[in-house]
Amino acid sequence: MASPSPAALAELKAALGPSGWTDDPSEIAPWVAEWRNKWKGDTPLMLKPDTTAEIARAVEICARHGVAIVPQGGGTGLVGGQVPFGEVLLTTRRLRAVRDVTPLDDAMTVEAGITLLEAQQLAAKADRFFPLSLAAEGTATIGGVISTNAGGTAVLRYGMMRDLVLGIEAVMPDGQLFNGLKRLRKDNTGYDLKQLLIGAEGTLGVVTAATLKLFPIMRSRATAVVGLASAYSAIQLLARAKAETGGGVEAFELMKRIGVEFALKHIPGVREPLDSVQPWYVLIELTSGEPGAAEAGMERILTAAFEEELITDAAIAQNETQVRDFWKLREEQSAAQRPEGGGWKHDVSVPVSRIADFLDEATAAVEAFEPGARVSAFGHVGDGNMHYDILCPPGGDLQAFLGRWEAGSKVVHDVVANYEGSISAEHGLGRLKTDEARRYKTPLEISTMQAIRKAIDPQRIMNPAVLF
Amino acid sequence: MASPSPAALAELKAALGPSGWTDDPSEIAPWVAEWRNKWKGDTPLMLKPDTTAEIARAVEICARHGVAIVPQGGGTGLVGGQVPFGEVLLTTRRLRAVRDVTPLDDAMTVEAGITLLEAQQLAAKADRFFPLSLAAEGTATIGGVISTNAGGTAVLRYGMMRDLVLGIEAVMPDGQLFNGLKRLRKDNTGYDLKQLLIGAEGTLGVVTAATLKLFPIMRSRATAVVGLASAYSAIQLLARAKAETGGGVEAFELMKRIGVEFALKHIPGVREPLDSVQPWYVLIELTSGEPGAAEAGMERILTAAFEEELITDAAIAQNETQVRDFWKLREEQSAAQRPEGGGWKHDVSVPVSRIADFLDEATAAVEAFEPGARVSAFGHVGDGNMHYDILCPPGGDLQAFLGRWEAGSKVVHDVVANYEGSISAEHGLGRLKTDEARRYKTPLEISTMQAIRKAIDPQRIMNPAVLF
Repeated sequence: MASPSPAALAELKAALGPSGWTDDPSEIAPWVAEWRNKWKGDTPLMLKPDTTAEIARAVEICARHGVAIVPQGGGTGLVGGQVPFGEVLLTTRRLRAVRDVTPLDDAMTVEAGITLLEAQQLAAKADRFFPLSLAAEGTATIGGVISTNAGGTAVLRYGMMRDLVLGIEAVMPDGQLFNGLKRLRKDNTGYDLKQLLIGAEGTLGVVTAATLKLFPIMRSRATAVVGLASAYSAIQLLARAKAETGGGVEAFELMKRIGVEFALKHIPGVREPLDSVQPWYVLIELTSGEPGAAEAGMERILTAAFEEELITDAAIAQNETQVRDFWKLREEQSAAQRPEGGGWKHDVSVPVSRIADFLDEATAAVEAFEPGARVSAFGHVGDGNMHYDILCPPGGDLQAFLGRWEAGSKVVHDVVANYEGSISAEHGLGRLKTDEARRYKTPLEISTMQAIRKAIDPQRIMNPAVLF
Repeated sequence: MASPSPAALAELKAALGPSGWTDDPSEIAPWVAEWRNKWKGDTPLMLKPDTTAEIARAVEICARHGVAIVPQGGGTGLVGGQVPFGEVLLTTRRLRAVRDVTPLDDAMTVEAGITLLEAQQLAAKADRFFPLSLAAEGTATIGGVISTNAGGTAVLRYGMMRDLVLGIEAVMPDGQLFNGLKRLRKDNTGYDLKQLLIGAEGTLGVVTAATLKLFPIMRSRATAVVGLASAYSAIQLLARAKAETGGGVEAFELMKRIGVEFALKHIPGVREPLDSVQPWYVLIELTSGEPGAAEAGMERILTAAFEEELITDAAIAQNETQVRDFWKLREEQSAAQRPEGGGWKHDVSVPVSRIADFLDEATAAVEAFEPGARVSAFGHVGDGNMHYDILCPPGGDLQAFLGRWEAGSKVVHDVVANYEGSISAEHGLGRLKTDEARRYKTPLEISTMQAIRKAIDPQRIMNPAVLF
C-alpha cells in the first residue's frame, strides 16, 4: 500500500485538531515498538481522537484517500497486530467514557479505551463481576480485548471475550457508524454482525464502545495446588471436578515441574507449593454462589482423587496470602523462563481429552528435532489451551536456537493440527502467525474470510497486513 | 427467481438416486404446509439426502443451474422460514448419524437430522446435560435449531443455541464443504465463520452437522411459583435470585393472571398454582452442582422476598408431580389462548430492567389502538424475552381483528424499538418478519448483511425470500 499522501495527512490533522494527532517521533515511539521489542514499526501519523465521532471522521478521510490504518488499544498484544509499518496508527485509548452501568440488566457500556482492570472495578462497584482476566489487564483495553477475542484464566467458566459482549459500537471501514450497543440477551433479526467484529483483529472496523455482560459475585471460593504423576491424571481430575461442582471450576491451570523450578530459581518470593516434589501440578479454583460450597466441594473432590490415586499431593489455600502465592507461581511461569534464555513460544489448543497425548507426542517431536531442548508447558488446560514453550538446551547457542524458531514451530504446529487443534488459541494471528496459519486453514476457510473482508472493506485499508 | 429447469431437476434426481428425492405431492404435502397452517407453499422437488456428501452434490448442481433452495429441518419454525414457494426443498432430516460423544471434552458431534430431544438423551447417556429445551424439541432438529439460533427455557443460564455450538459442518452455497467441526474451546485464527452460519436461517449454507457443548448434570434443583403484585417486583426478584445463587437461576418465567385463567379454563389437568389469586406469577427454577443448595437457596430467596414484600404468595414444588404441574401451566400458555380466538402474536425482547415499563407502555398503546383487546404476556423474562400476545376483545369480530394484525404489530414493535428491544427475540425473521424488520434495522446493518450474503452466495440461491 502506498504511503499516505500529504493531502490525506493534512485533512486528517485538520479534522482532529491539534490535540487529536501527533507526528512527534518521541511521542509515537512507545506505540510503534512492541513491548517485548519483537517488532519495531513506524507511522507517519498517530491519530488519538477522544470521541467516536472523531474516529468516524478520521476513518472516512482515510477511506476516501485510500489510506491504511492500524487500530490500536493498549498495545499489549503478543502477535504484533497492533504495530504499524507505514500505516496511520489510530489509537482508541482516549475513548474513556463509561456510558452506563445497569445492574438489573447485568450489563455496562464502556468506551474502547477503558482498561480491562477498570472494567472489572466498575463491575465490582455495581456489586457485579466482570470475569475476563489476564496478565496485561491493567493496560489492555476493552477495544483491544474485543478485537483480539482475548481469553485468560476464567474462560473455563465464563468463556472468551466473544461470550462476554452483548453489544458493540464500531466505525466501519468507510467511516459509517455501526451502533450495535444492545443490552439484549436475545435478538434473532439477521446475522450477528457483532460476532464478526469480535476477534477480527481490527480488519473489519474500529471498535469504539461495547456493552459487556456482568455476572453475580460468588459467595465462596477455594483454591488448591495438587501434584500429579501425569497430565493424563489432570484430565481425569478436571472431569471429576466439573461433574462434582456442576461446572463450578473457574480455573484449572497445569504446570510442569520444570516451570515450577524456573519460578523458584528466578522469581523472588515464589515458594514450593507442596511438601513433595511432583512431575506435574494443577492450580484449581472453585467458586460457588452458595456460601461454603466451594470449600466443601474442594474437600470432596480432593479426598476422592486421593482415594482413586489421581493425585499424589495437595494443598488447599488457607488464607488470601496462600491464594496469592499459588497464583503467583502460575502467573510467573512465563517471566521465569526469561533468565533461562529465550524460547520458541506457542499458544496452542487441542481438545481437552487429547491434551496429555498431545504433550507426549509434541515433546517427542521437539526432542527429535532439537535434542536437549527443554519444554515448559503450562496454561489453561481446562480449555485445552497450553502455552507450549521450548527453551534452548542448557549451554546451547541461543542465537542459533532462536534462528530455528520458525522450523521448530512447524514441528509443534503439525502435531497440533494432527490433534485437530488451533495454532493460536487466545493470542490471535496478527503479524506473527498469519502466514503460518495459511498452512493449516483450508482454502475454503481462507477464501470465505477474504470474501467477507472484501465485502466490508473493499479497499483493504483496515490493518491490511493482518489476517487473510 | 425462475422455476428450476427440467435439466436441473433431472440432474438432481440422478445425483441423489431414487431414495434421495420425491416429487410425489402426497409425500411433499406435510413439508410445504406450515404446521399451524399459516403458510401453504409448494415445491417442484423435495430432496431428502442422507449424507453430507449428497447434500454437497445437490447444492453444487443447484448452484450451477441457478436453482433456489429452501433448507428445512424439523419444520417447527414459527416464522415460515422453512416453507418453499417454488424453490427446491432440501430436508436435512435424514442426516441421522451420531459422529462422536466425548465426555472428557464435554462435547458431542451429531448430524443435522438428530432431534433436539435425541441430543438431550445422548448427552444424558454420557452423564452430561445438553441444555437447549423448547416445546418442539421432539421434532425440531439440530440443523434447524442452529440455523434459527433457537432459545427456549434455559437461556438465562446456558445461553442461546449460538452459545452451545463448538463447531459446524456446512455445505456452502457453491456446494463446497466447510468442515468446522472443532471440539476446541479456544481458537483465534481468523473470523468465526461458525457464528455467521448460526442464526442465518439457511441463507449462507446448509448446516449438516455440529459439535455441541455439553454440561455437568446438576445435583440439586428447586422449582417454585410465586405471586407478585407487578412485573416491577418480578425484575427485583430476578436480580435478588441471581445474586443469591451466583447465577444459579435456570428459568424465570413470567405469566399474567389472564394467561393462568385461560389455562385453567381450557387445558385439562391445569390447577391453580397458589392458594390465592395473583395479578402476576413467576415460575422460578434454581439448580446447583452442590446437593441441597438449590433448595436452600430457594428458601432463602423467598423468605427474604416475603419480608421485603416483593412477593405476595409462593409455593415450592414438593415432588416431581408438582414440578410438572408448574411447568405445564407455563408451557400451555400459548395453547390455552387458542380457544379464546386467534391473536396477534409477538416474540419480542427488551433489556430486562425495562420489561415492566415496556409492558405498561405497550399495553396502553394496544388498548388505545384496539379498545377491549386482551394482552396475554408471558415468557422468558429472565432474558428480557416476552411472548406478547393480543387477543380479540370478547365477542369481537375475530376475522376483522386478525385483519388488523399487521397494523397492531407495528404499535407493539414501535414500543419495542423505543425500548431498544428486538422484534424477534428467538423465532427469527423468516417470511413473517423480514419486511417488518426493515423498519427497525438501520440501513448500515441491512447493507452490511447484504454485502456479506452476496460475498458468500452471489447468486442468492439459499432461502432467497428470507432475511435481507
